[in-house]
Amino acid sequence: MSLELDTTAQDLLFREARTANTFTDEPVTDEQIRAVYDLVKYGPTAFNQCPLRITLVRSPEARARLVRHMAEGNRAKTEAAPLVAILSADNEFHEELPRLLPHFPQAKDVFYAERPVRERSALLNGALQAAYFIIGIRAAGLAAGPMTGFDPAGVRKEFLDDDHTPLVVVNIGRPGPDAWGPRSPRLDLDEVVTTV
Amino acid sequence: MSLELDTTAQDLLFREARTANTFTDEPVTDEQIRAVYDLVKYGPTAFNQCPLRITLVRSPEARARLVRHMAEGNRAKTEAAPLVAILSADNEFHEELPRLLPHFPQAKDVFYAERPVRERSALLNGALQAAYFIIGIRAAGLAAGPMTGFDPAGVRKEFLDDDHTPLVVVNIGRPGPDAWGPRSPRLDLDEVVTTV
Repeated sequence: MSLELDTTAQDLLFREARTANTFTDEPVTDEQIRAVYDLVKYGPTAFNQCPLRITLVRSPEARARLVRHMAEGNRAKTEAAPLVAILSADNEFHEELPRLLPHFPQAKDVFYAERPVRERSALLNGALQAAYFIIGIRAAGLAAGPMTGFDPAGVRKEFLDDDHTPLVVVNIGRPGPDAWGPRSPRLDLDEVVTTV
Repeated sequence: MSLELDTTAQDLLFREARTANTFTDEPVTDEQIRAVYDLVKYGPTAFNQCPLRITLVRSPEARARLVRHMAEGNRAKTEAAPLVAILSADNEFHEELPRLLPHFPQAKDVFYAERPVRERSALLNGALQAAYFIIGIRAAGLAAGPMTGFDPAGVRKEFLDDDHTPLVVVNIGRPGPDAWGPRSPRLDLDEVVTTV
């Protein structure tokens, strides 16, 4: 069974793409991030809520502030990556819904009046968009190094506010020497899929 | 700024792909699902935890049981789609970690001893994998209709167990007549991206 997506694209996005732990010095430009965003912004979210927000950490001063909140094993690579992005979910995404969902602007009040409901929805849909973003980084010919090993309260306080929940911190760049080890195994189809 | 991914693939996965609300009668085979899974299983998760589980709803009896728990606006299309998949997160994913993360089997106990920690991690990483799966459906030349409008407690009780959290229900097939309306707007880059 072959896919419609050609094998070059399959390799670029999934089969040969790997989480990078080292990077070259080649900068990642704002134009590259724009190209990524302008592709992956079309990925679907519930009621088109688009809760993902992206903080690009470009200044050395901001980089130093971020590194302090990373797990120890993630510090050196977060210090060295050409670009680091903090992906977060906007728990007040519903404020934009009348504009994002013009055919059903009532969704804002009908479904998302309560903050705990918004927080779970922003987490789930923000994570969907974080995955689209990782795929987009790879589509740009770059490597992503997504990390969840950081202090979320610290990152939130340092870079965000109470309305934003940090999801993933992503190192971005061209893979450097020994950027990754052997790939870890995946679960077999029959361990994951049940038919009813 | 152009991406390394060719425009045909960009269109297939993001630019022309849409959430489908109607489908043709063409069946979606187990071989197609295997091809999708064998591609997207390589998408990254934290510590390779791979918490996504997939329940393929194939029998008419199971379909009827699922439709009852869907939001009213999602019932007709969930009834009619060639295939429906319930995507869930396995909150006991850590049991597989010694096998999935052979170079750091202690992760199971060091990071994931507590259930609330596992639940949040399974939700976040399961959602990343749900997004990879949606991209994979499109890579197969099919359309996905992901839905979060369902009663999670009902779906869990009907098809899963207390260790699995339903995330998204996805209709899958070839798009039928009037499968979608005009695309809703997305946020501009400068509404989403902040640079520090």
